[in-house]
Amino acid sequence: MKAFEVRAPHDFGIVDIDAPQAAAGEVLVGVAFAGICGSDMHIIHGENAFVRFPRITGHEFAGIVEDIGDGVEGLAVCDRVCIDPVISCGECYPCRIGRPNVCTRLAVIGVHRNGGFEQRVSVPADNVHRLPANVGLDQAALVEPYTIAANVLERMQPHDGDALLILGAGVIGLTILQVARAKGLTDITVCDVIDDRLDAARSLGASHTVNGQRQDLEAVMSERSDGEGIPLIADAACVPALFPQLARIASPAGRIGLLGFNATPSDLVQLEVIKKELTIVGSRLNNRKFPDVIEMLASGRLDASALVSHRLPFAEMGEAIHMIDHHPERVRKVLIELGA
Amino acid sequence: MKAFEVRAPHDFGIVDIDAPQAAAGEVLVGVAFAGICGSDMHIIHGENAFVRFPRITGHEFAGIVEDIGDGVEGLAVCDRVCIDPVISCGECYPCRIGRPNVCTRLAVIGVHRNGGFEQRVSVPADNVHRLPANVGLDQAALVEPYTIAANVLERMQPHDGDALLILGAGVIGLTILQVARAKGLTDITVCDVIDDRLDAARSLGASHTVNGQRQDLEAVMSERSDGEGIPLIADAACVPALFPQLARIASPAGRIGLLGFNATPSDLVQLEVIKKELTIVGSRLNNRKFPDVIEMLASGRLDASALVSHRLPFAEMGEAIHMIDHHPERVRKVLIELGA
Repeated sequence: MKAFEVRAPHDFGIVDIDAPQAAAGEVLVGVAFAGICGSDMHIIHGENAFVRFPRITGHEFAGIVEDIGDGVEGLAVCDRVCIDPVISCGECYPCRIGRPNVCTRLAVIGVHRNGGFEQRVSVPADNVHRLPANVGLDQAALVEPYTIAANVLERMQPHDGDALLILGAGVIGLTILQVARAKGLTDITVCDVIDDRLDAARSLGASHTVNGQRQDLEAVMSERSDGEGIPLIADAACVPALFPQLARIASPAGRIGLLGFNATPSDLVQLEVIKKELTIVGSRLNNRKFPDVIEMLASGRLDASALVSHRLPFAEMGEAIHMIDHHPERVRKVLIELGA
Repeated sequence: MKAFEVRAPHDFGIVDIDAPQAAAGEVLVGVAFAGICGSDMHIIHGENAFVRFPRITGHEFAGIVEDIGDGVEGLAVCDRVCIDPVISCGECYPCRIGRPNVCTRLAVIGVHRNGGFEQRVSVPADNVHRLPANVGLDQAALVEPYTIAANVLERMQPHDGDALLILGAGVIGLTILQVARAKGLTDITVCDVIDDRLDAARSLGASHTVNGQRQDLEAVMSERSDGEGIPLIADAACVPALFPQLARIASPAGRIGLLGFNATPSDLVQLEVIKKELTIVGSRLNNRKFPDVIEMLASGRLDASALVSHRLPFAEMGEAIHMIDHHPERVRKVLIELGA
């Protein structure tokens, strides 16, 4: 079978390997579609310290169950499924308090073990989610990026009618926008510095957009909220220098969700956090959000096709990566068809 | 009647004024005891921008209802009561989502309007809490500082068995320690740089203490938690330079509660917040925590007398303030007896 292997940073390609067997407690999935994520690109660029090479990446994928390992119940050959990449131990402190996505022995499919950029992959049965008949495998491959959005929004505890500010109109910002709309929020401002992305945000239902290069975000948001501030701010841009502005834009009792893996320190003014009693939350991967997102797709409240800019056969993985590297402004989500 | 009036920063004294009347919707309380808080000192020092002078300060107090204003139900003359200083509008965004302590039109008794350092004070009936017979008025005057502790702990969402690190063994640190013990936490480390304060923390039930000047807090906490980190960190010291260390000490899914009004920026490394999915919460005043604290005092789970270092008659307010200013190391909570 074909697999996309990253042998070392910047050294990758499609190789012929033997198909894996379904291990005990696992199922063998014939992968139909897989999405390319920014974090796949980080692995290819050698920017993920957790990865040991060679690695078959890919953590956004869906397909059909082809074989069942020993001890697996509730799944059958021919089931249409998508896969939660988060494998947790169930015993450490975060697992015990219901936060398996930051398990101290966390393993992520496609990062710590082989993922979806191969035609068949063995994955733990506990990570497999069966799909309703009306959710296509192409949409199902994108459940994972939507769980990123669902996770940060849950961490931010939205209330009905809350205004939301999203920083960044890349894929993560747009998934947050779509999930927030699906969950009933309507007053959603998206800020970016690229007008094409802001156009995309408007077409996906942003009520307002701000070009942060031409407009004063803080002044705009203050005026829009009559000086009361914005209850929900999701930072999918992670420009550390902007953080102090976010704390000023937030309303009293506001919640700020952070998503970016940036090691440059931001200025946190505790006075601001306490005066307004702000809540600042990190969000990583997803905490059992697959059922929620699958239901939103099945009910039509989410349309994953709006996220896809390119749909390419598996043989063109190299071209896809080149395009993402060199023309990121042209790309939203690239979906790879592994059967093609 | 006698009242302690701050006429301007550093200009204060006990004056004779007419007793107020119980306004409509309010009750007149004969104040028995009042505690002096660090924020009273800030007002005296001219460090609170919200205060207009002259002001009768004091937001930690208890006494006996002496008169009932029009429209008040459920309270009677001779009721023994303590008073929540937080007055909120009930209509703004924070009020609507159940966070009245950061009401956009917040008024605090003893800050925005006259408080408990007078022999009789009129306060909104909604802010008055009746006391069980076994809670003395001296203990009841200290319900408010315990609500500060209860508030930050609730914001930090403790789980059974969570380890807690408290930075600072001043009055706020010690109230957090006592409330955490009352709520069943047992693995509690208190860090300070003054040994006498750490002795006090041990006598109030801290399981471990760390002198941050002589010991490496980060190394000690890492060893104590077998490298897993500490789930709960309450920062009652507010040394902005220490904040990055707190994020490193925290466990995955850890919660950091901030209490200090310091405008110097701290370094917030978003990578750390996201990798561990930390939650950083500000805590201000209290969000309806009076019933909870009164119950802890009534059941004997909290002993407010352990917090009191000095008990002085009203006539010695000036001496008390001088002592707090010049010998803070000698002082825990100073309780003023207004009848004396």
